[in-house]
Amino acid sequence: MGFKPKNTDYKRKVNDSFNRQKFMGLINAELVDIKPGYCEIQIPFDVNLTQQHGFFHAGIISTIADNAAGYAGFSLMEENSSILTVEFKLNLIAPGEGELLIGRASVLKNGRTLTICRSDVFIVKNGKEKLCAASQSTLIELKNKTDNNTNK
Amino acid sequence: MGFKPKNTDYKRKVNDSFNRQKFMGLINAELVDIKPGYCEIQIPFDVNLTQQHGFFHAGIISTIADNAAGYAGFSLMEENSSILTVEFKLNLIAPGEGELLIGRASVLKNGRTLTICRSDVFIVKNGKEKLCAASQSTLIELKNKTDNNTNK
Amino acid sequence: MGFKPKNTDYKRKVNDSFNRQKFMGLINAELVDIKPGYCEIQIPFDVNLTQQHGFFHAGIISTIADNAAGYAGFSLMEENSSILTVEFKLNLIAPGEGELLIGRASVLKNGRTLTICRSDVFIVKNGKEKLCAASQSTLIELKNKTDNNTNK
Amino acid sequence: MGFKPKNTDYKRKVNDSFNRQKFMGLINAELVDIKPGYCEIQIPFDVNLTQQHGFFHAGIISTIADNAAGYAGFSLMEENSSILTVEFKLNLIAPGEGELLIGRASVLKNGRTLTICRSDVFIVKNGKEKLCAASQSTLIELKNKTDNNTNK
Repeated sequence: MGFKPKNTDYKRKVNDSFNRQKFMGLINAELVDIKPGYCEIQIPFDVNLTQQHGFFHAGIISTIADNAAGYAGFSLMEENSSILTVEFKLNLIAPGEGELLIGRASVLKNGRTLTICRSDVFIVKNGKEKLCAASQSTLIELKNKTDNNTNK
Repeated sequence: MGFKPKNTDYKRKVNDSFNRQKFMGLINAELVDIKPGYCEIQIPFDVNLTQQHGFFHAGIISTIADNAAGYAGFSLMEENSSILTVEFKLNLIAPGEGELLIGRASVLKNGRTLTICRSDVFIVKNGKEKLCAASQSTLIELKNKTDNNTNK
Repeated sequence: MGFKPKNTDYKRKVNDSFNRQKFMGLINAELVDIKPGYCEIQIPFDVNLTQQHGFFHAGIISTIADNAAGYAGFSLMEENSSILTVEFKLNLIAPGEGELLIGRASVLKNGRTLTICRSDVFIVKNGKEKLCAASQSTLIELKNKTDNNTNK
Repeated sequence: MGFKPKNTDYKRKVNDSFNRQKFMGLINAELVDIKPGYCEIQIPFDVNLTQQHGFFHAGIISTIADNAAGYAGFSLMEENSSILTVEFKLNLIAPGEGELLIGRASVLKNGRTLTICRSDVFIVKNGKEKLCAASQSTLIELKNKTDNNTNK
């Protein structure tokens, strides 16, 4: 939607932050695409990520929706800003039954303090994408607060 | 709030379902308490569950809130029913910085088809509990649909 | 999004229901467009609809978001079905300062029991539209339950 | 929950703001109780506030939930602060069929910038209260921004 990043080096900043999230490593999440106001994350199926029916757990679906939203918003924030999710709401629309989960988030509004995003989560089964969940999030920009945990 | 379980064997049913969720094993989540319309889950801190600042990841906080709500609702459902989360909304209130995460959920309304729950997530730091997140969920009871994945 | 209505007479059914909502009359809401899975409602500015700063009240913004979602979903339901909003979540994005409020809702998923919609609310000021609020809703179809209050 | 108001004159400030909301007059809403971090609003039944089945419209239920939350939060804010609802989520739990609607909101967390509240809406029918809706809200404090529309 034509957002201009305030930080031209936003890709590096988003990647660094994503790579510091050890939970992303545990679940094999991959940051696949980052553009100003947009983020895509993918998680391949693994039996350790399942709920009682053997499908992707709702917690994983929430994680990908929230994290895609967070980094979509983070791409538009200043170099010296950190980001927190204030809240999000997620509808689970179809079972997470398939070989790959894809989270795609877009910024709706990038305000001075708050940023609003929508995320769609897709499940890929036999190569075919289907809407699995839909989410709406509120993020807050914490200015002059580094995202790097060694200096927090 | 004085709910009467329709299934007197609800504890076994909830425990079985929880134990079939392999994701609970991956994150070392423990089902600590289950009563009619109430559930408590705990997750000890582990560096693999962290976000960029080294605290519990919002995805873990969502997972514990959603799962506690789901099993609080499931405790009131019929023996032959399965359960799905329709949607939930979560506010992140304080950073997940501490040694233990506790999710406690209570049923607000147990309807014929839909059940509404509230979950509170607490972070324990140096033995002291603090409200970390607050959530509200909608669950659906799928009658005559076993929760057991081998017969789904 | 290519939804096919199960009830070819859906326009009449939606209009009848809308016209029975006396609250729509009180606030001068007008059903402007209804298509399968889509609905648009408009409310002209009136000082009686304002909050403390003289702008459209958040309650009016919620009303238009929820009602547009409800009728977008209702357009896809069976002739003998009634509809209820299960829940919705709304982000207020810009002040409701202007001469006209427009709510536009689209169905994301039309399931057997539940329907998920997104609504966008726009404020028109000096003829220019701006995103004012964004919402996500869950609706339930009550089959064989007439929407007509004289036979409820 | 033992909140201390920063502004000892919070009752006057809340009442003034409520009275400037012309929409509250249109729907005959009454501010019944305001304490630090708590607010109760009531709306008597009127046929002009109804949906298609003759019950309180969901828009009215949302309005009372949101406004009670807003003033519960506003009671804790500084003299020179204004307040905006960032977002809220509402579950409709029972039909709004009765003679009086009551919204009661309590602050969960009063942060420096954001305040989180929960609202419960009750419907009174033949003198008996029943839970009608449950809501969770995020509010933002705008410091040094008067709530009075003549000086905005």
